Amino acid sequence: MGNTIGKIFRVTTFGESHGMGIGVVIDGCPPNLSLNLEKISYELMRRRPGQSKLTTQRKEMESFQILSGWFEEKTTGTPLTFWIENQDAKSKDYEHLKTAYRPSHADFTYHQKYKNYDYRGGGRSSARETAARVIAGAVAKQILDLYNIQIFAWVSQVGKIHCNKSFENIDFTLIEENSVRCPEPEVAKLMEEEILKVKKNGDTVGGVISAVILNVPVGLGEPVFDRLSADLAKAMLSINATKGFEYGSGFRCAEMHGSEHNDIFYQKNNQIFTKTNHSGGIQGGISNGMPIEFRVAFKPVATILKKQESIDFDGNQVIIEGRGRHDPCVVPRAVPIVEAMAAITILDHLFRFKAISVKK
Amino acid sequence: MGNTIGKIFRVTTFGESHGMGIGVVIDGCPPNLSLNLEKISYELMRRRPGQSKLTTQRKEMESFQILSGWFEEKTTGTPLTFWIENQDAKSKDYEHLKTAYRPSHADFTYHQKYKNYDYRGGGRSSARETAARVIAGAVAKQILDLYNIQIFAWVSQVGKIHCNKSFENIDFTLIEENSVRCPEPEVAKLMEEEILKVKKNGDTVGGVISAVILNVPVGLGEPVFDRLSADLAKAMLSINATKGFEYGSGFRCAEMHGSEHNDIFYQKNNQIFTKTNHSGGIQGGISNGMPIEFRVAFKPVATILKKQESIDFDGNQVIIEGRGRHDPCVVPRAVPIVEAMAAITILDHLFRFKAISVKK
Amino acid sequence: MGNTIGKIFRVTTFGESHGMGIGVVIDGCPPNLSLNLEKISYELMRRRPGQSKLTTQRKEMESFQILSGWFEEKTTGTPLTFWIENQDAKSKDYEHLKTAYRPSHADFTYHQKYKNYDYRGGGRSSARETAARVIAGAVAKQILDLYNIQIFAWVSQVGKIHCNKSFENIDFTLIEENSVRCPEPEVAKLMEEEILKVKKNGDTVGGVISAVILNVPVGLGEPVFDRLSADLAKAMLSINATKGFEYGSGFRCAEMHGSEHNDIFYQKNNQIFTKTNHSGGIQGGISNGMPIEFRVAFKPVATILKKQESIDFDGNQVIIEGRGRHDPCVVPRAVPIVEAMAAITILDHLFRFKAISVKK
Amino acid sequence: MGNTIGKIFRVTTFGESHGMGIGVVIDGCPPNLSLNLEKISYELMRRRPGQSKLTTQRKEMESFQILSGWFEEKTTGTPLTFWIENQDAKSKDYEHLKTAYRPSHADFTYHQKYKNYDYRGGGRSSARETAARVIAGAVAKQILDLYNIQIFAWVSQVGKIHCNKSFENIDFTLIEENSVRCPEPEVAKLMEEEILKVKKNGDTVGGVISAVILNVPVGLGEPVFDRLSADLAKAMLSINATKGFEYGSGFRCAEMHGSEHNDIFYQKNNQIFTKTNHSGGIQGGISNGMPIEFRVAFKPVATILKKQESIDFDGNQVIIEGRGRHDPCVVPRAVPIVEAMAAITILDHLFRFKAISVKK
Repeated sequence: MGNTIGKIFRVTTFGESHGMGIGVVIDGCPPNLSLNLEKISYELMRRRPGQSKLTTQRKEMESFQILSGWFEEKTTGTPLTFWIENQDAKSKDYEHLKTAYRPSHADFTYHQKYKNYDYRGGGRSSARETAARVIAGAVAKQILDLYNIQIFAWVSQVGKIHCNKSFENIDFTLIEENSVRCPEPEVAKLMEEEILKVKKNGDTVGGVISAVILNVPVGLGEPVFDRLSADLAKAMLSINATKGFEYGSGFRCAEMHGSEHNDIFYQKNNQIFTKTNHSGGIQGGISNGMPIEFRVAFKPVATILKKQESIDFDGNQVIIEGRGRHDPCVVPRAVPIVEAMAAITILDHLFRFKAISVKK
Repeated sequence: MGNTIGKIFRVTTFGESHGMGIGVVIDGCPPNLSLNLEKISYELMRRRPGQSKLTTQRKEMESFQILSGWFEEKTTGTPLTFWIENQDAKSKDYEHLKTAYRPSHADFTYHQKYKNYDYRGGGRSSARETAARVIAGAVAKQILDLYNIQIFAWVSQVGKIHCNKSFENIDFTLIEENSVRCPEPEVAKLMEEEILKVKKNGDTVGGVISAVILNVPVGLGEPVFDRLSADLAKAMLSINATKGFEYGSGFRCAEMHGSEHNDIFYQKNNQIFTKTNHSGGIQGGISNGMPIEFRVAFKPVATILKKQESIDFDGNQVIIEGRGRHDPCVVPRAVPIVEAMAAITILDHLFRFKAISVKK
Repeated sequence: MGNTIGKIFRVTTFGESHGMGIGVVIDGCPPNLSLNLEKISYELMRRRPGQSKLTTQRKEMESFQILSGWFEEKTTGTPLTFWIENQDAKSKDYEHLKTAYRPSHADFTYHQKYKNYDYRGGGRSSARETAARVIAGAVAKQILDLYNIQIFAWVSQVGKIHCNKSFENIDFTLIEENSVRCPEPEVAKLMEEEILKVKKNGDTVGGVISAVILNVPVGLGEPVFDRLSADLAKAMLSINATKGFEYGSGFRCAEMHGSEHNDIFYQKNNQIFTKTNHSGGIQGGISNGMPIEFRVAFKPVATILKKQESIDFDGNQVIIEGRGRHDPCVVPRAVPIVEAMAAITILDHLFRFKAISVKK
Repeated sequence: MGNTIGKIFRVTTFGESHGMGIGVVIDGCPPNLSLNLEKISYELMRRRPGQSKLTTQRKEMESFQILSGWFEEKTTGTPLTFWIENQDAKSKDYEHLKTAYRPSHADFTYHQKYKNYDYRGGGRSSARETAARVIAGAVAKQILDLYNIQIFAWVSQVGKIHCNKSFENIDFTLIEENSVRCPEPEVAKLMEEEILKVKKNGDTVGGVISAVILNVPVGLGEPVFDRLSADLAKAMLSINATKGFEYGSGFRCAEMHGSEHNDIFYQKNNQIFTKTNHSGGIQGGISNGMPIEFRVAFKPVATILKKQESIDFDGNQVIIEGRGRHDPCVVPRAVPIVEAMAAITILDHLFRFKAISVKK
């Protein structure tokens, strides 16, 4: 269960990391949109392993097929389905793990929940599933483009190295200029060095992705359960390896006083702005027209190339050692996934908003 | 839209802060449960304003009625509806705000979204709506009791004052012993002093609530969108004034290496545990049987008793000054709300789990 | 479970026939609508028992309260909740049935499903619940009015007496002119006589309600599961005592040839029509702009004032005899319920349609 | 929208008749089920065109692939996806229809709704989509088998020829013995003759399918909107070409008196039965343990091989003439589709029932 997200723009993913492939059905995509397929490929390429020394060397060649909902280079308005066939799934790398649980990996919970276990790889808990989300997000982004809504994410922390620039001072074109996807070149370099060092030790390291959504109209989100902030939190925490979400002032707010935290309104050119944006673009669960800013924490990848104690399926103590191709740090590749989930969430709320705006 | 949460244990709230009252419909509550109504009252009392000098002096006398789903002191299995009539709604306090937006309050977004505005109070964006959630949570808690699942939340930060005790070292009975709901008495005292100081200045301060869920069986949650962590994040971020959610190691994970972050499995008495719990009881979105630990950040209350710049409905600059009865710090009263939303989320996932466990 | 209908215009009912009252929460109602409350009362009055000798003499005085979502005589856009307090619930009439199952009544299934039993009356299976639907339908109707969409239902069969007039030949103002709600006065008279005769015998009789929905734009409904026809069927079969649904040619289509059944298109004044309407306004699950025509079969009321064999809760054979106030024929009072469920269904589909109509 | 059915056992179909293929994602399928794939093939074969002279000669070779959710010959508990590639899609047959609407076909509504038109075939409104449902139904059937629940459907009417046998007198093994799927051989023969006669005239004819579901436990279904009868009605009316649904006494109930319609309870071997089954196994929306009996009306296929008036996309009057391979009567092939939709509906309700049955 739970493989669908969204109420109107509904995204359902299917497929396993070492099965036949990964797919996504988008129900609620408007008809007659001339999607740019190259932009979808581009997003997939950004998520793909093997982009640099910093990411796993698995070759996921993400050439996708459109299985349905597409005719004469346009969406038909019926379920839009994409399919990526799995290739180069070196299942041998994992075989030695057939009967032992990897610490902090989903092996154990997956096995206990389903009482079965695909020893070839993580099944649905593998990050490979996120390729399907990236496609759906790339579709959502193109629809959001029609409303001038734009989403940017970047790596703002790797281990103890921080990029603290606020988005206003960021040149978004720099994000893709380095393998770590940090828009501050000198910080990016430090991050890359950190990741390579960690990798050399057979270890992994965590990080943080920051994101901003621009030009969201006032009024998206609902005041109670389906707050825009709540739905973004869910979307982000549904990404593998995430441990935290905060928007606007985030956890820092706990130390602040109302008199410093409050965002003062002012009007300019007949539009209302706030002087600060501790609210992160969302007040009372509803977008206020300011940029939506949030941050997502990612843990260090669980698979390390070091010996670790663990237990086998029978509870016996064993020593395991990760092999195979794994990222020493997940955040560079997670940037397009964060953008994708943000796009899906915002578009769904945009459609909800349109649904009940009634003429009188 | 968006006033319902849960897929099987479905909670729908209705009502406004200064309307007739606040209600909640629970659809998916099993029949024949002898709910202890006093426990529900107790939870409401914990959420209620006016409990101490630290909280607003509004008198919300939370005597509720059961409108449906209850017969001969048991649930019937049909929609269980509770209703709390509003009393003592001193709308005069708010009247001066009739045409000005309060900074960082939901006034503005609410007004822009709905093009109407209940100047008497926050409508659905008021924290008063959470009374309905507390009731639903109190019901959920009693059902979870049947499965021995227990939930505890407490205040772990107010401004710059922290309570860093891990839950194992906490005596949960101390939580209710002080007005700030911090289980470390000496820290609680500092927090109380801080809040009173802030209050005296007409200001407010933020905080953090920590929580733990004990005895959750292995296997709740889904590996993709409906991760237990994602649904908890959504539930928490759907609470008023929240700015961030993290579980297990949370944002600290970003600084950590895999070799230190990984939780090593071991077996004892035929049950599997982990030596550390950076995973916060959830791996790959699915509960692993360890305690579920999370933290929620709350911003300082937006309404301060100080002069602030703002704009009126026509965009003119004005000076406003909060009056009325508002909490200088929201976290003490938010403790039962966090517990309630956790209970609703866990119970819904428990029911999902039961739904598809098929005999063969 | 299952107390909510609709995806965007979501209607949740609660309450039991002999409990405190009956309520309905409408989530997804647009803001700022000046609903005419008298029209809502009027619809409730139409559904109310005791309107004539033909209907039960229970006095359900349907004065409702609006519990939420209503401010300064307009909808606020938040959950719109109505509440009707139960009065005059003569539970004594039912008390003798405390331990016996009434044949063809929901007693047995209800008892077996929930393992509890409100001997005072039918609980949620009582037709009293439909008062809540009629309110939601009356709201939906007023929104549909803004789109010029109109719904009319009438009694077209009671026992063996038929009113075969097609809607084009019906003067809708005549529907309310007689107690049986048949727009053909001479047939209405025969129906009334039939019902009185049946009543005199302590018996009951079934019937059929026909309905037409005018001015539905082309394009509502989806081609696969959420066909407009499928959702209308569900809505109608969710009404108590219904046994069948058909639209357009209905079951008669089984005897027909394609060459006679096909509706020939033609154009007039730049609009497309069909010469016949065997399709009942819906082709391939999607409205085609022609009037939507359907029929719903209602069984004879199960409670008869005659001795019947049955069994008690322990399975012993008993003789029971209905007492109390029951309709000899349910169709006259079911007319506004059919209209209400149609209105809810059409409005929800209208909102779905609007949700994804994207500017480019 | 609207391409998913079910709340726990959720079935989503995708794909078009003349696109790449047809697929189905089943979310909510329990893990570790050794599905018999040959039984799935068998059901597809039953639905397939070209089985006899009575059905269209299109060759849909339904060899399916399992794209996900299947490992070592068992379900994994994650989304179970099937894919049938389209073959032999002779789109030339349809090409002449490129700019004209076929009477009573979904062409017109589809075109108006989506503003695009796949002239190669019916897109999502084609009966080809039902192959995906038949697969999901075949999966559901195998799970229902574990609970001993069985579903049988058969053709009970073609044109004016009826098979009135009640299911107790039917030898279900005879259903597949003739090409019309009527279990009464002599009636089957008449039906076959009728269909061939109609076919010879280039015409088509309607029909009725009857079905029975055996061994459904007491208590499935909900008393209000999600009545089992309502959900069956929706499921059936979601099938192409359907015009009506009735269960138990159906439309005949309108003529009946309560005293003859009521089903008298009796007990035998500690189980409760009713002497008659006008209720069709469902009372108050909830299964009563008796066989669930229902009937579905199918219109004559809209595509006839005769000249018909119509209009083109510009509204000009034209004469069109169907070519290609179309069924003269849809009911024989619709039998497995009716069974599939019934299986999906019953299983979903079974899972709902299990979800909230709480230990105490």
